[in-house]
Amino acid sequence: MSRAHPLSRLIDALRVLPGVGPRTAQRMAYQLLQRQRSGAEQLLAALVHTLDLVTQCSHCNNYSTTPICELCQDESRDPHLLCVVETPTDLLMMEQTLAYQGHYFVLMGHLSPLDGIGSQDIHLPRLVTRIQGSALEEVILATNLTAEGEATAHAIATLLRPLGLRLSRLARGVPVGGELEYIDSGTLAQALRERRQALN
Amino acid sequence: MSRAHPLSRLIDALRVLPGVGPRTAQRMAYQLLQRQRSGAEQLLAALVHTLDLVTQCSHCNNYSTTPICELCQDESRDPHLLCVVETPTDLLMMEQTLAYQGHYFVLMGHLSPLDGIGSQDIHLPRLVTRIQGSALEEVILATNLTAEGEATAHAIATLLRPLGLRLSRLARGVPVGGELEYIDSGTLAQALRERRQALN
Repeated sequence: MSRAHPLSRLIDALRVLPGVGPRTAQRMAYQLLQRQRSGAEQLLAALVHTLDLVTQCSHCNNYSTTPICELCQDESRDPHLLCVVETPTDLLMMEQTLAYQGHYFVLMGHLSPLDGIGSQDIHLPRLVTRIQGSALEEVILATNLTAEGEATAHAIATLLRPLGLRLSRLARGVPVGGELEYIDSGTLAQALRERRQALN
Repeated sequence: MSRAHPLSRLIDALRVLPGVGPRTAQRMAYQLLQRQRSGAEQLLAALVHTLDLVTQCSHCNNYSTTPICELCQDESRDPHLLCVVETPTDLLMMEQTLAYQGHYFVLMGHLSPLDGIGSQDIHLPRLVTRIQGSALEEVILATNLTAEGEATAHAIATLLRPLGLRLSRLARGVPVGGELEYIDSGTLAQALRERRQALN
């Protein structure tokens, strides 16, 4: 089948979905064409609708159907706190803790020089603009505790340091409910280095 | 088979092994008697030898073949730091981090009032004696971050507070290499509450 053939274009296009390789994409494409024509039309409509309506919030960068998202407009949120996360899913995870009442900034990724993802791609200039002239007092760097997340947090901290606000990072340590016997050495070493006063 | 029968005594005795229920114990007992007579004799000898030679270190409470264990006798260890752990395995985990150079105290368990395990059973009076008149400056409470471990740490902190040394606890937080998306809410909330200054 030539590259230009619409079916091979669809197969290629389906491979943007996570976990979908060439074989699965091919099966999906045939399924959509042969048996699921109406499903394919619904998928098409949903895609058009979503791409049309969902934009990114001009404040926090998260997906939103309004120019400024509901969370950014919510006046009950603490205007002094900003939490920087990698993805919209991470924002949801933070919300589920019920332990955070401030605002967010979603990077939509992490720095990855090898993949050509630099500070522009994770919207760092916009983050600086967001902070300048705001009421913010603390920025919590809540990127993942992976190598890429740590590097991204470090880069952001370096960038924001001149702005003179408090910069903090999620605690590294033993998960709540964790037993020492099943923790990796690196985490245990960190939990030891960053030990806290007892009876706080 | 009556309770007094030696075979049922052996079956009952084998049930002290972790993960061994009545069925497994029965299979083990028959195996030992029918096919593994020599193995059974070796096991017997090893048990006698171990029970005879291995005692507990009078300093740290860990298993030792000498009245004071090698680690407690090692003069290169920092005499100002004491790390309190629940089990000998936890001590090994701490050693594997290569991040700790102080001494230990092994509780051999945790407080569990429902199971009748009180402060005597986890040797707290001996811990106090160990600390009094020593060169110790800090006690690190490295019990598990489970409910029992936390309760035990809290009880020890309350007990030791009058002695006036620094009391610390392992950091609670996101494991090194962890992604927010796969962390439980409780841990993420703790990591947020105990966030640290960035760029340290």
